[in-house]
Amino acid sequence: MSTEFPHIPTPDAQAHRAAVARHLTLTKPAGSLGRLEELGVWVAACQGQCPPRPFARPRVIVFAGDHGVAAHGVSAFPAEVTGQMVANFLTGGAAINVMAAVAGATVRVLDLGVDTDAEFPEQVTAHKVRRSSGSVDRVDALTDDEIYAAIAAGRAIADEEVDAGADLLVAGDMGIANTTPASIIIAALAGAEPVAVVGRGTGIDDEAWMRKAVAIRDGLRRARRVSANPVALLRTVGGADIAAMAAFLAQAAVRKTPVILDGLVSGAAALVAEELAPGASEWWVAGHRSVEPAHTLVLEQLNLTPVLDLELRLGEGTGAVAALPLVTMAARVLAEMATFSDAGVTEGDIRLPAAVDVNGRNGGWR
Amino acid sequence: MSTEFPHIPTPDAQAHRAAVARHLTLTKPAGSLGRLEELGVWVAACQGQCPPRPFARPRVIVFAGDHGVAAHGVSAFPAEVTGQMVANFLTGGAAINVMAAVAGATVRVLDLGVDTDAEFPEQVTAHKVRRSSGSVDRVDALTDDEIYAAIAAGRAIADEEVDAGADLLVAGDMGIANTTPASIIIAALAGAEPVAVVGRGTGIDDEAWMRKAVAIRDGLRRARRVSANPVALLRTVGGADIAAMAAFLAQAAVRKTPVILDGLVSGAAALVAEELAPGASEWWVAGHRSVEPAHTLVLEQLNLTPVLDLELRLGEGTGAVAALPLVTMAARVLAEMATFSDAGVTEGDIRLPAAVDVNGRNGGWR
Repeated sequence: MSTEFPHIPTPDAQAHRAAVARHLTLTKPAGSLGRLEELGVWVAACQGQCPPRPFARPRVIVFAGDHGVAAHGVSAFPAEVTGQMVANFLTGGAAINVMAAVAGATVRVLDLGVDTDAEFPEQVTAHKVRRSSGSVDRVDALTDDEIYAAIAAGRAIADEEVDAGADLLVAGDMGIANTTPASIIIAALAGAEPVAVVGRGTGIDDEAWMRKAVAIRDGLRRARRVSANPVALLRTVGGADIAAMAAFLAQAAVRKTPVILDGLVSGAAALVAEELAPGASEWWVAGHRSVEPAHTLVLEQLNLTPVLDLELRLGEGTGAVAALPLVTMAARVLAEMATFSDAGVTEGDIRLPAAVDVNGRNGGWR
Repeated sequence: MSTEFPHIPTPDAQAHRAAVARHLTLTKPAGSLGRLEELGVWVAACQGQCPPRPFARPRVIVFAGDHGVAAHGVSAFPAEVTGQMVANFLTGGAAINVMAAVAGATVRVLDLGVDTDAEFPEQVTAHKVRRSSGSVDRVDALTDDEIYAAIAAGRAIADEEVDAGADLLVAGDMGIANTTPASIIIAALAGAEPVAVVGRGTGIDDEAWMRKAVAIRDGLRRARRVSANPVALLRTVGGADIAAMAAFLAQAAVRKTPVILDGLVSGAAALVAEELAPGASEWWVAGHRSVEPAHTLVLEQLNLTPVLDLELRLGEGTGAVAALPLVTMAARVLAEMATFSDAGVTEGDIRLPAAVDVNGRNGGWR
């Protein structure tokens, strides 16, 4: 099984330019919708057409998996909650279900590595790699076979979704203790010290925080030996869920499909995906800034400016889906607003904006 | 005509407590939805019930009016654009139309003081006070009769909306040059110097910025003489649109109806509304932080933490409507998520959050 990704195309430069130009014709002061204008331009560039189409099938994939490190008391919740939450997703009771319904997205949950005896429907377990993972502070998360299976799963999931018409993707996470491997991966790729990445996760107390800090310190020592190799990094300190998510994010870019990133775990997977498939990040926006300290490192490394900053720390894709209505508004504003000439509105003596970049790399326009 | 508002009730403390308690029972780590949890609690308190109802009729009222000061070159657009944009709202071509449709809100535009010969439908002009206003840098915006008429209009509009079933309100603005009177009002009530409130508005160049700074300086000199009296302040340096908006925001609180505030002009009206009806601000959240410098003074004066910070500076209610899907998600999460016991999910060893306040006054909970 190959872990090589093809060259990632950039979003369409002509559609990008057309969208920047179209914004100047719409009945509003130039640049007055700030980041919403940039997001609309990005959607047009990803779709390769201006005006952009409304999203037909925004889709949230929740990657569920357990983590052996949970046994060492790094989470406020026991590992059994991962499987219980998978059941909760399937009956529509979780936060992501409710929020996705408001945003017009549908949710698919996949068991990549849940440690449960529960019998989930076949479509939930179709891509299952194993139960749980090795405790990454002391042993490898996955075997060689398992990491290849997890990466193949992530690629297959992206292909399935795009082939079924998904035109905007979100990768959500569910896995007790998953902020520990995610934080290790981020520290390894950002060159950060353990203490800079240890967050409160689900809301752990000081004793659990100290146990988590030790686990991250030990895991990071192991991670640094392999951090130049993204596949080895996922195998050593990731897990089936995180590895599949990284491959999914890379493959979404291969398939030229825009992604809204979520928080810490999605961010760790994204950092690795950018290593697997350089340039993939051009197809992503950051939905939000998590309160987890390591997530800010992800945003810095990927040079992404988050749409929202609402002190979220839930995961499941919630921070991405919270931003989805804004991305939808951004696309529809660009597609549906009247132009000055359509509406017979006099154009102003406007200052022209600087070059625009969805993630503010060129400073945005004000 | 009285300009006295009745005592403003506070949102329901029992529903507030019930919502805080309910959040702890939902299948997510306590506090993990950050400000979305706070917003849900606020909606429950405003509605006086927990769980909250979904919004049945979110409603945007655009208050349109011209401003005599436009003749002094303080905007990038000519005054004729105000009337042209009213026509654009009526045919659905403006940003607020497109964004409200995504957010599930409907838009009503009202001509309070547009300087136009265009014949708008009767329902648009039903509350019209006059054409334009006096140039507030040198003469009063309105006469005594006109300020009473504008305040009566704002109150009547809020009553009409609530009586017709509106359960969430947004006050948007449309008026070339309206950031000049808005900035004067804010400086007067926040005790700020002119230079601290002069923004780029629609995107003015340096020469127009200097003309605007002079107009604000002169208007502020006139405003300070009357700043202790909110009605006199609106009469002296406001305008029919801003005065009606202030009364509308105060009356929304009288009618116990939650409001999402927009940016600079909505913020100036809100500052005055809080003077007219102390406590009204408990019924408001700030949808966003505008790039206009005076808007940050509004947020500080009212002790409001904005939901979004997207470098918007359009007005029309767009910054409020951008936040509406998040408020909707917040309410529906609180109403529709499964509880731990419903879903058979094991509760964690969670840290209990501190007291919650939608605007973060008590530091929020993390």
